[in-house]
Amino acid sequence: MRAAQEYRPHLALAHALADRAREIVLPFFHSPQTRIKAERKADRSPVTRADRQAEQAMRAMIADAFPEHAVVGEEFGDGDSGNGGAGGLTWCIDPIDGTRAFICGRPTFGTLIALLQDGAPVLGIVDMPRLDERWVGVTGEPTLRNGEPCRALAAAALEDATLLCTSAEMFSAAERPRFDALRGRVAEAGFGTDCYGYALLASGFADIVMEAGLAPHDFAALVPVVEGAGGRISDWNGAPLAAAGAGVQKKHTVLACAGKELHALALAVIAR
Amino acid sequence: MRAAQEYRPHLALAHALADRAREIVLPFFHSPQTRIKAERKADRSPVTRADRQAEQAMRAMIADAFPEHAVVGEEFGDGDSGNGGAGGLTWCIDPIDGTRAFICGRPTFGTLIALLQDGAPVLGIVDMPRLDERWVGVTGEPTLRNGEPCRALAAAALEDATLLCTSAEMFSAAERPRFDALRGRVAEAGFGTDCYGYALLASGFADIVMEAGLAPHDFAALVPVVEGAGGRISDWNGAPLAAAGAGVQKKHTVLACAGKELHALALAVIAR
Repeated sequence: MRAAQEYRPHLALAHALADRAREIVLPFFHSPQTRIKAERKADRSPVTRADRQAEQAMRAMIADAFPEHAVVGEEFGDGDSGNGGAGGLTWCIDPIDGTRAFICGRPTFGTLIALLQDGAPVLGIVDMPRLDERWVGVTGEPTLRNGEPCRALAAAALEDATLLCTSAEMFSAAERPRFDALRGRVAEAGFGTDCYGYALLASGFADIVMEAGLAPHDFAALVPVVEGAGGRISDWNGAPLAAAGAGVQKKHTVLACAGKELHALALAVIAR
Repeated sequence: MRAAQEYRPHLALAHALADRAREIVLPFFHSPQTRIKAERKADRSPVTRADRQAEQAMRAMIADAFPEHAVVGEEFGDGDSGNGGAGGLTWCIDPIDGTRAFICGRPTFGTLIALLQDGAPVLGIVDMPRLDERWVGVTGEPTLRNGEPCRALAAAALEDATLLCTSAEMFSAAERPRFDALRGRVAEAGFGTDCYGYALLASGFADIVMEAGLAPHDFAALVPVVEGAGGRISDWNGAPLAAAGAGVQKKHTVLACAGKELHALALAVIAR
């Protein structure tokens, strides 16, 4: 793995991408037209002009700065195995994570930007346009929230933990009992969090985020952010979240915890 | 019912209460100490110093301006039947609606301030400190969001509607099937909304909010806000939400819809 400073030019671009996405996305937020004009994709999930315009703008900026890199995005696919362009580098972007929240005016939507090195996320930005908060993770460096280091803070016991999740409806019939098992052990559950749940975990406000049905563009940016804050993130079997070769359609389970011990405890509960 | 202009002095106080609550509450938000020091009430729901300080400050301001009025609050009870002080007027306040969200850093918490005339809500404020948004409803007047009139916007059919709710865990075993029945008929469900869900409905971003287990301080302020935007709000049987004589402990079901027809359709689905 390359030293963190080698990613400085990429980080500068990532910030510029997030800035541009904010400019494009915010005028569509809290506009009744956005709700009325939302369309449905093949999987019935919604998409808006804001998603498409922001992804197109980000793709153009990446092509301009690093024409040799590959790009995987939510709205316009990959055309690539995810193994990367020149130097094994792939950008993995989601212009609006939480489009459902975005459409009905909830501020938990965010822009996710990740850089993959040979399929492993080495740089991630979670940007919250409406909340004016940005988390940045670069492999080997502490996670920053609006430029200040932040740190996950794990409850000592599962019984004291707060669990976040976008919706219990995101789980398949096979997955739901595993979520319910963990929910039954923790103190509190909060819903409707989208990518913001992982960012809150990285800042010490939540212990666990458990989700499923996530594509690489949904989780790639979260990995450096959570890990750089001292948290752990994996799939529900404890395996690393690898975006390589996955393509945009493959769905993954995700378990993020505010510390190593809590992660082990949670994995033991959800193991079959 | 008195004319809306008669409530102008009360509205001025309500704004001042919301301003003061913001000042008190915001410094506690996004502070890890708030999470660590949260306590549990008898019903296991959390309470923080922010809740208590804000309610005490608001009570002092009401006592100063209208010493003859009754006050019902979440954290310090009522000592009153809810039928009101002099002139049948009672203030019904919740310093932090969504304390669970507040503790884990989610911005959907709000301050709720209502004035009841003989138990009926005639003035309501939904203030969102972190989001810098305030909805104001006064009986007979259009609802305002940050000073501008706003309007609910109902889907033409239940099948196109978006349903919001704080958590599906808020329903009792008897209530849950009625929620699931409505959820099964609508297009989308969003969670984690607290009082913000009703405010979004009043601004045209959501069609339905269905909740249960709410006390008068949770819903009194919502009634003028939703109705002044053209929405309908009732209990699950279609009866008006009356805070009179209820006391702080009595729990209610709530169904808010963006229009009259949608409200009738939703009631028909959840009727037993």
